[in-house]
Amino acid sequence: MIQFDIITIFPKIFDSWLAETFIKKARDKKIIKINVHNLRDWSDDERKTVDDRPYGGGLGMVLKVGPIYRAIKKLKKRGSHVVLFTPRGKKFTQKKATELAKHKQIIMICGRYEGVDERVADYIADEKLSIGNYDLMGGELPAMVVIESICRLVPNVLGKPDFLNQRKTESGGFIEYAQYTRPEIFEPKKGIKWRVPKTLLSGNQKEIGKWRDKRRKVIEK
Amino acid sequence: MIQFDIITIFPKIFDSWLAETFIKKARDKKIIKINVHNLRDWSDDERKTVDDRPYGGGLGMVLKVGPIYRAIKKLKKRGSHVVLFTPRGKKFTQKKATELAKHKQIIMICGRYEGVDERVADYIADEKLSIGNYDLMGGELPAMVVIESICRLVPNVLGKPDFLNQRKTESGGFIEYAQYTRPEIFEPKKGIKWRVPKTLLSGNQKEIGKWRDKRRKVIEK
Repeated sequence: MIQFDIITIFPKIFDSWLAETFIKKARDKKIIKINVHNLRDWSDDERKTVDDRPYGGGLGMVLKVGPIYRAIKKLKKRGSHVVLFTPRGKKFTQKKATELAKHKQIIMICGRYEGVDERVADYIADEKLSIGNYDLMGGELPAMVVIESICRLVPNVLGKPDFLNQRKTESGGFIEYAQYTRPEIFEPKKGIKWRVPKTLLSGNQKEIGKWRDKRRKVIEK
Repeated sequence: MIQFDIITIFPKIFDSWLAETFIKKARDKKIIKINVHNLRDWSDDERKTVDDRPYGGGLGMVLKVGPIYRAIKKLKKRGSHVVLFTPRGKKFTQKKATELAKHKQIIMICGRYEGVDERVADYIADEKLSIGNYDLMGGELPAMVVIESICRLVPNVLGKPDFLNQRKTESGGFIEYAQYTRPEIFEPKKGIKWRVPKTLLSGNQKEIGKWRDKRRKVIEK
């Protein structure tokens, strides 16, 4: 069973995401395990401080190395992999998800404010990841994104294993193509008709396969 | 004030994310508006059906065009922009966030299951976006990612406008560099010392600026 440990100063952000959809079902069936930890539990003062001002000046606060070091020391099991989310990290892709899915435990450190003391990146994290070229408020959404991607690859998280196998490529990517469903003709206004492509209605599986191959996109890196 | 309307079949996923951090504060102060809508409210049958099997065969279910069409028709205001999340969409970047921040209303359609009837992409959405090359369970996390990125750019969502201006580039990107905070020396074990770079402790703002320029990364596209 794959286990995810998330270290964050906003543990409640995850509550309703954990309580819905396939993530909830997979946890209930004990196919995956997700623990959310409050970084403040590893603070060493009474006020539960986990941040301080940056050296060299500048606005905002930076998460301290000490509490993160102690959290990892406590949570880390044999064979675990520690990920830090930072916009300067390596790009997270479907191939990376396939690779990460092989670990037994993934510990994720969620930055906040102006960032995390760089010693966490240099000495503690096994890998620095970014989910895309945009600025977020913290590592919490990246943690959910990475967990969802990995969980789709875990057998039995989605209903039928066939779902998964039909869409996976050998090189660790997945296949996406245009889909249509009833009705054949949708009329938003009188005289305007939005139609399903005829090939898909033909029942000719060979032609349907060709049509889909033309419009498919492989997503991997 | 910028308004976001999210159309989803899992509206509760957003609850705890909406109740925390800057997003909550910005909503309380009425700097931004976020409405979450249940797509099933626009179903046209008693069982609240919003999906059906794909034409041409294949596993899984596809979201129907009708309920989405009716939802958009009801929610759309003058000057609104309709976004559909799909792995085949254009890559969402910081530049795109800067561009989207200019709209008064952004309506976001969150796909689920095996996808959304392609007529939504062809006739209804103004833009198809993807937050990265990985497979997610739906458009809900992408909606949160896009809202967080845009909200960081809205004046007064983050504490001080200076936070924002120091990190923005003229071309719509943002600047990231390594940060350190107390203590100067962290000793994980006796005899092992993790140090803050000397330049940052020097108090010499010119040298600190040079050091940061060398290690900074501009994130935009």
